[in-house]
Amino acid sequence: MKKLSILLFSLTLSLSAFAQQALWGGPQIVSPEINPDNSVTFRIMAPKAVKVQITGDFLPTQKMATPFGVFDAPGVADLVEKDGFWFYTSEPLVSELYSYNFVVDGLRILDPANAYMTRDISSFTNIFIIKGEKGDLYSVQDVPHGTVSRVWYNSPTLGKERRMTVYTPAGYETNKKESYPVLYLLHGMGGDEEAWTTLGRAAKILDNLIAAGKAKPMLIVMTNGNALHQSAPGESGEGMYKPYNCGSMDGTFEPSFPDVIKFVESNYRVIRKKSARAICGLSMGGFHSLHISRLFPDTFDYVGLFSAAILPGQPGQEVPAAYQNMDETLKIQFSKNPKLYYIAIGSADFLYQANVEYRAKLDAAGYKYEYHESGKGHIWENWRIYLSEFAPKLFQTSK
Amino acid sequence: MKKLSILLFSLTLSLSAFAQQALWGGPQIVSPEINPDNSVTFRIMAPKAVKVQITGDFLPTQKMATPFGVFDAPGVADLVEKDGFWFYTSEPLVSELYSYNFVVDGLRILDPANAYMTRDISSFTNIFIIKGEKGDLYSVQDVPHGTVSRVWYNSPTLGKERRMTVYTPAGYETNKKESYPVLYLLHGMGGDEEAWTTLGRAAKILDNLIAAGKAKPMLIVMTNGNALHQSAPGESGEGMYKPYNCGSMDGTFEPSFPDVIKFVESNYRVIRKKSARAICGLSMGGFHSLHISRLFPDTFDYVGLFSAAILPGQPGQEVPAAYQNMDETLKIQFSKNPKLYYIAIGSADFLYQANVEYRAKLDAAGYKYEYHESGKGHIWENWRIYLSEFAPKLFQTSK
Repeated sequence: MKKLSILLFSLTLSLSAFAQQALWGGPQIVSPEINPDNSVTFRIMAPKAVKVQITGDFLPTQKMATPFGVFDAPGVADLVEKDGFWFYTSEPLVSELYSYNFVVDGLRILDPANAYMTRDISSFTNIFIIKGEKGDLYSVQDVPHGTVSRVWYNSPTLGKERRMTVYTPAGYETNKKESYPVLYLLHGMGGDEEAWTTLGRAAKILDNLIAAGKAKPMLIVMTNGNALHQSAPGESGEGMYKPYNCGSMDGTFEPSFPDVIKFVESNYRVIRKKSARAICGLSMGGFHSLHISRLFPDTFDYVGLFSAAILPGQPGQEVPAAYQNMDETLKIQFSKNPKLYYIAIGSADFLYQANVEYRAKLDAAGYKYEYHESGKGHIWENWRIYLSEFAPKLFQTSK
Repeated sequence: MKKLSILLFSLTLSLSAFAQQALWGGPQIVSPEINPDNSVTFRIMAPKAVKVQITGDFLPTQKMATPFGVFDAPGVADLVEKDGFWFYTSEPLVSELYSYNFVVDGLRILDPANAYMTRDISSFTNIFIIKGEKGDLYSVQDVPHGTVSRVWYNSPTLGKERRMTVYTPAGYETNKKESYPVLYLLHGMGGDEEAWTTLGRAAKILDNLIAAGKAKPMLIVMTNGNALHQSAPGESGEGMYKPYNCGSMDGTFEPSFPDVIKFVESNYRVIRKKSARAICGLSMGGFHSLHISRLFPDTFDYVGLFSAAILPGQPGQEVPAAYQNMDETLKIQFSKNPKLYYIAIGSADFLYQANVEYRAKLDAAGYKYEYHESGKGHIWENWRIYLSEFAPKLFQTSK
């Protein structure tokens, strides 16, 4: 078998120009390493570096002044060096999914030893998970898994073919006589149809909630809320672009939403009833959810606003038609008794006050809603929590 | 509208802890920039760096000596610095998809200005495309797009739930009375069920070939050939792992392949006939294709070996059962007249001689095959070409 062994070794050496580097390149550094007390040690070999830092959402935030106020920015910590290797060990961390980057002599880079990473708009961050309650919910567990598909649909309203992500729950392929309810799950500004499955862990969360009997099996449809675009950067004929000024809050996306529903209800085994449709979203996606559910008051029985970008109605010709007549359309929407209108926001969110005002408006009109206030600000940590709380409330009486 | 504008600006500033960095951080460097003559300029800001290099498959290869021979490794070039910015401009390049990384003071990193990247085993490389014949074929064009799904199937033979990627062609969702042929497309050592859609651009290639009328609409099923694992790193309950010793060529994967076919033929609208099934793969996937098609001689009418890891039959107890009786089973396979047995390899491939010997064996027995020899070695550039040539030959008479 010597010949076979040599051939196998040669194969792994020579897989491709870059693969050999991937398989064999560099020392076998472990980073991040989660220690028994849930502190985390990060390591990088950079013998020529003068200064190595780490920035991530597990570090205490630091204040960042801008012309529009003071915001929380992720903290930064220095690594220490020994023999060309740099180290940092965090405080013990609570169970969560965390993001980070190294900063080597001012250059922000990925951890070369961690293949676990995700795109956040147009840059990349490494991620790691501390096991426990939330970490387990966001992890891939040994449970039945749904299917995640990148699908194209036609939007006559926007005049485009557009890309969406569809999650079908475990069993969808085999239970061919079953029809399912649908959650429409919308991203924030700068995001796209991939954000909820990557940063948001939506498929993992639903796999785990459904397997635990905590949520009903449902489809999740994740559209692209940037009306000017067809898809995430690089995934359409538009090629790569940076997501500025995407026509996301100019009133064009909301009226096109029936195109999405029509495609889903024509091509999947779903229940075509108000009681089997939910819509929610984060930040700009909360804004979209507010307006879409109001513009189509017979469509959704469940509405979720996660750290929603609330823009109170401002009469006048500069306000797009889709955002006018807030009071009248909300009155119609609530007169039809949606089963759940859910509002969630972090106490440190820069949109907190706008949400206080919106809730006061709902209170004054006597409209019922559920409210959840968490700590911290405008971050994915909160949006994963809100999805984990919202999904179990859905479709308990959908049939 | 001033209030609205400020709110929108604040929103983009504060999307999330990291998102603000992604949207607004750093200078707006363009890299890579494809110049009118198809040379490419790369740029990075690294004011504290002493040496910045670029390594990529567009540079002339360099020889790398190993205990097992001399292999081609990707070239390296130095960037030049001015005011903290580093630059490199390549020679004019022919149309192709290229991969690269920067190396800053010895540390291999991604280009911070290029959000277009792909995983190669357990590291990441940036990519760019030079338009033209091949570049266009590998790009997302304005044509109807198929659906790409990550799906879980049960393999009783391996005792695991396992993950696969399934491409269904444009129209699959709407042409509900149509059944399709299937191409089973296998990855190489170190790869997984994601490699052919990322590095291999399989969905883009098939979208474009089908739209041009050059290939029949077909499903592509991309399994995970690492029998010890359920999925790509991080995508199963196994968590993150580095793909060493994955049980990939020990004779366990091949006998489990009927589990894959059973799942596909139970859950998709496909034609259940030999004339509507093809199998091909690169390197280890070519090895798998050779053996699976031989072990199940009534299953596939089309077989493709791309830079295949040919291991001539070696009688003896150390050879797993799946790799024994080569001559007898090949005789049975070819006696059933497969419509196409296609072999392709690069003239500089380290497996070239093994393929010469295998072809001599087929020639001596009078077995018919098509042979395509390209330049260069054991690289994705060749495997994309072979898929682009193989797919149009399939299923022309499948009904």
